[in-house]
Formats: sequence, C-alpha cells, structure tokens
Amino acid sequence: MQEQLREHIEKIVPLTDDEFAFVWEHFTTEQYKKRAFLIRQGESVPHAYFVVAGLLKLIYDDESGRQHIVSFAMEDWWESDYQAYFTRTKATMSLQCLENTRVCCLSLENYRQLCAGLQKMEHFFLQKANAGHIASQRRILSFLTANANERYEQLLKRYPSLFQRVPKTLLASYLGVSRETLSRLRRS
Amino acid sequence: MQEQLREHIEKIVPLTDDEFAFVWEHFTTEQYKKRAFLIRQGESVPHAYFVVAGLLKLIYDDESGRQHIVSFAMEDWWESDYQAYFTRTKATMSLQCLENTRVCCLSLENYRQLCAGLQKMEHFFLQKANAGHIASQRRILSFLTANANERYEQLLKRYPSLFQRVPKTLLASYLGVSRETLSRLRRS
Repeated sequence: MQEQLREHIEKIVPLTDDEFAFVWEHFTTEQYKKRAFLIRQGESVPHAYFVVAGLLKLIYDDESGRQHIVSFAMEDWWESDYQAYFTRTKATMSLQCLENTRVCCLSLENYRQLCAGLQKMEHFFLQKANAGHIASQRRILSFLTANANERYEQLLKRYPSLFQRVPKTLLASYLGVSRETLSRLRRS
Repeated sequence: MQEQLREHIEKIVPLTDDEFAFVWEHFTTEQYKKRAFLIRQGESVPHAYFVVAGLLKLIYDDESGRQHIVSFAMEDWWESDYQAYFTRTKATMSLQCLENTRVCCLSLENYRQLCAGLQKMEHFFLQKANAGHIASQRRILSFLTANANERYEQLLKRYPSLFQRVPKTLLASYLGVSRETLSRLRRS
C-alpha cells in the first residue's frame, strides 16, 4: 500500500525516500471485509483513513432508523467523521464498507506529529482540506439549488464509476431522492 | 484592524512581533458599504476575506433569478468563493454586505507566500480549513436529516446573534424553507 500512498502524496508534494520513510512510519494498514464498520456512530474515532482499494459509505442513522448517506469514499479518497476525529468526541456518523476495502490509518497524534515534523505534509493536508471544503461548498449549493434531476446529472458526470459500484438505493439516499425518482431519472 | 487579525490568529498559533509584522505585510484592508459586493458571480475572485466588523452573505442567483444563501459571515469569519479563489476560475457565487463591513484581504499569491514563509501560518490555515470542512459536513448532514424546525433550532443555538442582524427572508433562504414556515417556527 506504500506505493499508492506515496504516489497520492506526491501529486501535491514531491518527497525524498527518507521523507517518505518518515511519513510511512506514522501510518498503520488495515483490511476490512464488505459490510465491516471502520467507525460506528456513538463510538470514538481513532483514525482518518486513506482508501487504497475498495469503497466505503459515510452514513447517519436517524432516530427513526432511516439511513442517510453523507458521502462515499473510494480509491485515493480520505474519509473520517472529522468532527469526532479532530475534537476527540464520539462519532455522529458511521463508516462502513460497501466492498472489501484496504486502508492506511492515521491517528490524530500521528497526524499532528507528521505536520509538525515535515512542513511538506502540513502543506499536503492543507491542500486536501481546502479541496474537501470546496467539495462540501459545492454540495451545499447543489442541495439549495438543484433539483433531483440536476443532482443526478452532476454526480454522474463527476463520479461515473459510482454508478457501476453503488446500489441504486444508496445513490438515491445520497442524492436525497426516493428510489422511485432515481429509477425514473435513470430511464430518461 | 491589525489587532483583531493578530488576536484571531493567536487563538491558534502564538506569534512574535516580527512574525506578525511579516504576516501583516501580506494583507490589504478594505471598507464596504451595506449592499456593496466583494465578489460577483461570473467575475474573478482575487481575495479571501477576514471579517473584522460587519456581516456578509455568500449567495447564488439561479437562472430563474431566485437567490440562495450558501452562508453568512460575520466578525472573525473567513469567507470567499473558495473554488474560484483557489483554482483562479470565475466566481459561481457572490459575496455581498448586509451591513457596513471592514475586511482584511488576502490574495492567493500572498496566501501561498505566507504559508511557505512561516510554517505557523500554514498550520493556522490548516486548522481553519479543517474547521470549515467539519462545519460543511455538519450542514450537509442537517440537509439530509433535519426538518425545518430542527435546522432552525440548530442555527438559533449556534449563532444566536444572526437572528438579531439578518432579515427573516434571508434566514429562510439559508435554511431552505419558505418565509411563512420560518414565521411559524419563530412564533412557536
């Protein structure tokens, strides 16, 4: 998994072999089976995850037992319940595998050590955080302005592979539409 | 305005006088009258703004001429159309004053120089970006799960002063509810 992580980081900051060795020391790796949980609502969140292979869903189960999809994460994506991770509070969301998944795990302590020990990594994480913030701003805008059809088109254009890998019921939940609406959109 | 900016940054990283002098060199300041635009949809976005005094709305005007509120920004907040700012593309949103407003302005070039020249500032911006990402994740969750009443309660609890300063029509737009729904909520 080292190669994927290095390649991913080097898209933003080039690293020497020594620097990458230092980076790699701060990660652990883990494999999960389909349906396994990396984070459970109500429990602590020890890691942020870099997805090497597989697919995850970040979900929120409301009091009535209905499940809402906050986001998906696949290869080359970082995911966590960031509020719980950064503030060391209990998770308000769960992170669950939709496929067998391999991840690199970074604890908050190691995240801080990595940023303090190597400015390139602070720079890397700043770029990723800004990109995440932009993506969220765009998604908020789409909730405010776009109808179901437009949200569907935006998602299809941005992440075509999701439509091969994710069950329709989950796509509908992510888009905030009913399964029936989604089926109608896919036929049109 | 120097004092407010310094105090704001020092909530996260302490700075020496020399360090703050270096920081301050990278900013310009500006004053705007109520209703003035800092950013206009379709134009370029030269700055990110730190609000020293006043109140702004980040808005999106859709094709039918309807205005949507993406966020508010008041004292101690940073705001911009970050996608346009970081990627040097045209604004998809506008930023407009709801009150007379004073801001510190940071160009992308200066943002980069500041981060490269002083790791403390890269650390500061990483903390702010993570906080922004967390707030967006929370807002997405509230769109997916909360009804109008709950979104209203969450906003009231988090930013009570907004209710004194922002017209009801705009609060309704921010919450994604009708003005009538909001009036009903405020009476209950």
